[in-house]
Amino acid sequence: MKKQLHIVKIGGSLMEEPGSQQQLVQAFTQLDGPKILVHGGGGKASQLESALGLEPKMVHGRRITSPESLEVVVMVYAGLLNKTLVAALQAQKCNALGVCGADANLIAARKRPVRELDYGLVGDVTAVNTEALSTLLEAGYSPVLCAITHDGKGQLLNTNADTIATEIAIQMGQSHEVILHYCFDRPGVLKNPGDATSIIPRLDHASYHQLKAQGVIHGGMLPKLDNCFRALQSGVSQIRLGSIAMLIQPDEPYTLLST
Amino acid sequence: MKKQLHIVKIGGSLMEEPGSQQQLVQAFTQLDGPKILVHGGGGKASQLESALGLEPKMVHGRRITSPESLEVVVMVYAGLLNKTLVAALQAQKCNALGVCGADANLIAARKRPVRELDYGLVGDVTAVNTEALSTLLEAGYSPVLCAITHDGKGQLLNTNADTIATEIAIQMGQSHEVILHYCFDRPGVLKNPGDATSIIPRLDHASYHQLKAQGVIHGGMLPKLDNCFRALQSGVSQIRLGSIAMLIQPDEPYTLLST
Repeated sequence: MKKQLHIVKIGGSLMEEPGSQQQLVQAFTQLDGPKILVHGGGGKASQLESALGLEPKMVHGRRITSPESLEVVVMVYAGLLNKTLVAALQAQKCNALGVCGADANLIAARKRPVRELDYGLVGDVTAVNTEALSTLLEAGYSPVLCAITHDGKGQLLNTNADTIATEIAIQMGQSHEVILHYCFDRPGVLKNPGDATSIIPRLDHASYHQLKAQGVIHGGMLPKLDNCFRALQSGVSQIRLGSIAMLIQPDEPYTLLST
Repeated sequence: MKKQLHIVKIGGSLMEEPGSQQQLVQAFTQLDGPKILVHGGGGKASQLESALGLEPKMVHGRRITSPESLEVVVMVYAGLLNKTLVAALQAQKCNALGVCGADANLIAARKRPVRELDYGLVGDVTAVNTEALSTLLEAGYSPVLCAITHDGKGQLLNTNADTIATEIAIQMGQSHEVILHYCFDRPGVLKNPGDATSIIPRLDHASYHQLKAQGVIHGGMLPKLDNCFRALQSGVSQIRLGSIAMLIQPDEPYTLLST
């Protein structure tokens, strides 16, 4: 039987609220067994860019990463957010080890090819070092990954945190029973975004396509859910979307995805 | 027989020159056996503080670390400098793992007590987690440590990189034959700071005290050398001070310290 592995993805905006961060730290610490935390970036990088007189450049909701922007995201994601989270986890006796994709060559990527748009120093994941992740987990560490990868030639790359969580889940799914938790600022996938009680408790591939076609699910949820269904079809055991509370509170509602 | 362990401390100013950084990456990669790299900070943190309108506050050559300054040093040391170095080492197939003292609870510290001066969020090392360092080394990783520690209660602390290197050397010296290399911008301890050929090839405790009393060795070298002699008396096998080239070039001069 495969060993269970929890992978928790936490959105950057949640990490920046002290209350949510504290809740995350306590909930993640309480999760039993081997576990990995992947965190996003949030607004701090844009704030720092602005303070430095850099113009945050977003196209279709995606950050165009200039060399100066990359410095900022590496400082904020791999430095400030990652280490603040690790120190908070260690204070709860969770043996966190904060890393980016370059560390131990954990996540390799290649610069996204220029087609209609040049995203700059943005990486698409090419390999997950499952051996290194397993080594760290077996040694008793909980890896805390920020969304920075590298190309193996010395270049750091800005990478989507949802994609990193999904790719890790897929690759680790070969040796583990992976439960992937997407924690965000809603209690699940909602039928009506304005109504937090309209949670869809269970979503399979067929009903997802239907709700997508009807326009009920749209916007930023689409790439997230596309990623999720790809992961389920690639051997991830279970995916849950919801609030941080779902990690430890059995009564907390969330959306469970199934194939 | 104890296993050999190289610990290399590199000054922050050297890390910021691209040529020196490349030289360090190649030399460190070529060192045989288990190895640890400890890096300082350099001028980038002060530059970023200035750009953000923070006044870098130095007293007797030491940075007073306000909460805002701490954010900056965590971003620069644990983020930008650490990850840039790790990506460069990985490109040379050196299996680097970049960490701060909070990661895996590697280096615990306590906020320096306020006496004549409040240094702010500055930490004095209280414990080195030799078990965790050994685990990482045995797994084949080369830990790359920045000079950020934590107090175990969630607070990150700015810490002197020389002290971190020395404390790691002393504690790892119990199980390893430690060779501690201090790489800086001079080819060794000089009799005459203006003359790079005036290297003192061998310096023992007695002659150090003599040269200190005569004022030949002074300034920033004193705390560094005091640290070094303490380490030698606490079981570190060998300490070398010099340029990066001494790491791999047998003919390169350096200062060898002995008790």
